[in-house]
Amino acid sequence: MAIDIQALQAGNSRALAKAITLVESKRVEHRSEAQLLLEQLLPHTGNSIRIGITGIPGVGKSTFIEAFGLYLLSQGKRVAVLAVDPSSPIAGGSILGDKTRMELLSRSKDAFIRPSPSEGSLGGVAQKTRETMLLCEAAGYDVILVETVGVGQSEYEVASMVDFFMVLMLPNAGDELQGIKKGIIELADALVINKADGESINLAQQTRRHYENALHLLRQNSFWTPQVMSCSALKNENIEAIWGMISGFKIDATKNGSLQEKRSRQAREWMNKLLHEMLDMKLKQNPEVKVLLPELNQKVTMGETTPYLAATRLINLLFKPDA
Amino acid sequence: MAIDIQALQAGNSRALAKAITLVESKRVEHRSEAQLLLEQLLPHTGNSIRIGITGIPGVGKSTFIEAFGLYLLSQGKRVAVLAVDPSSPIAGGSILGDKTRMELLSRSKDAFIRPSPSEGSLGGVAQKTRETMLLCEAAGYDVILVETVGVGQSEYEVASMVDFFMVLMLPNAGDELQGIKKGIIELADALVINKADGESINLAQQTRRHYENALHLLRQNSFWTPQVMSCSALKNENIEAIWGMISGFKIDATKNGSLQEKRSRQAREWMNKLLHEMLDMKLKQNPEVKVLLPELNQKVTMGETTPYLAATRLINLLFKPDA
Repeated sequence: MAIDIQALQAGNSRALAKAITLVESKRVEHRSEAQLLLEQLLPHTGNSIRIGITGIPGVGKSTFIEAFGLYLLSQGKRVAVLAVDPSSPIAGGSILGDKTRMELLSRSKDAFIRPSPSEGSLGGVAQKTRETMLLCEAAGYDVILVETVGVGQSEYEVASMVDFFMVLMLPNAGDELQGIKKGIIELADALVINKADGESINLAQQTRRHYENALHLLRQNSFWTPQVMSCSALKNENIEAIWGMISGFKIDATKNGSLQEKRSRQAREWMNKLLHEMLDMKLKQNPEVKVLLPELNQKVTMGETTPYLAATRLINLLFKPDA
Repeated sequence: MAIDIQALQAGNSRALAKAITLVESKRVEHRSEAQLLLEQLLPHTGNSIRIGITGIPGVGKSTFIEAFGLYLLSQGKRVAVLAVDPSSPIAGGSILGDKTRMELLSRSKDAFIRPSPSEGSLGGVAQKTRETMLLCEAAGYDVILVETVGVGQSEYEVASMVDFFMVLMLPNAGDELQGIKKGIIELADALVINKADGESINLAQQTRRHYENALHLLRQNSFWTPQVMSCSALKNENIEAIWGMISGFKIDATKNGSLQEKRSRQAREWMNKLLHEMLDMKLKQNPEVKVLLPELNQKVTMGETTPYLAATRLINLLFKPDA
């Protein structure tokens, strides 16, 4: 697949889309081609601010991204919107809708919207999104928004690939959980209470105070104190302040080195994760392991052998001298 | 190392201690000897109730285990106390103290107290504790208490090897976190508020109500509803009720099959974990990988290569045809 690198770096969205298709391809020769392309482009990546956005369905995520994205465009930014959602019949629905649910944004030549890769495990989907993010940076996008509806572990995946992780919430102080998985709040650099408009304004303020108190209890080991803000994406209120917060974060984190440090750590962790996935695949694809694994699983389940002996037998199969 | 299996199964604590030493040994020939012993003993394991106990320093864990253990002895039970703590100069301190901090318990012939294996990673320590638990069961102990002070991820390790996981807490309704890591509460089958005596009785009741409300918010997908109880280990109050709860759990979980199901799942997960650790060790011990890994780590950190390419190169080294 011939990719026009110059066109891609000049910001040509067709060249970008083609490169993403290459990155998402499952064909072995495409995979190595994609990696060479990425390595070539690496020096031209890293110049965006990478923002992760999550929130339960109904929180107004599309409306927020539309409003936020349009504001960024008005500030002269180029904006890419990517998604990480493990494939499922339900998530599949949003793929068709991506362009319609962010109608104005998708019409701009300075915005690039790409749905979640549609196939594969969450790990595979996240891998491709990370690579797509690099392509978008090489293509000169200033702000990358990575959204997820939070199926399975996808929030963790997104938080581990972005600079700034934002959780959208509803004005509802009474329901402490808001359907948000525990642990997600701890990942957040900001909680943003959307739909703070009309009759919900007071409730949104209460919710804000509630989460400010809650965040206060969490220990910090970073220069950044997670913020709680409210906004109305529908009425375009307080969108500017949210960008002010994030760009302030970027300036400080760049100055004190923590942005570079975070990205380096993320890259190393990503490498480790890939190593483990590849090892796992080598194991699962070994023809003898394929035969023995279900049998040993059964024996371990029935208490007929120890997990250690079972694991040792499988490892020995994989690494036997004549393999 | 010759282990007297008959003596071990007859409950001889010297034979048991020797078998545990074998299991804890790092010598390769001991490792395989230990595994053969364990496989031989497997049909005689599983007859105890395995109880995990965690709580921050100061919560009165030793006093609780002493009181609880003595109560169990008075009921004709044989009790083994094991520990899981990753080695550290600090944790090392408790090893010397194990017998003194549970003085009465340690004097009984029907109690067996074994400190945490003193060396190795948490994974290694947990592995040896799992195996020691099997040996104790083969030696006829009815109740196995596995305690941890909760360094690192040790609570998760303990929770994944026991039937019933208990978190000891202090009477302190005001401090919602109590120094307990988030996520631990979700693992608990029971929260037990210790030191509910003297002036703290009212506070303990408040704390209990607080956690009853908090637990109420957590979704359940088990037949068992986590309980919140209070006790005073020092004054020996409510210890019997805690055993009543746990033995009730065991009867129900045995009857409805969930105990067997949980143990089978734990064994399979343990096998998978071992598989991953062994694969990781194979990788890290490969001489060429040892050379290249730091270099690639550096390149990934500096953004000179992609995590995917780096991981692929390492995997190819490990699995190259002439290896």
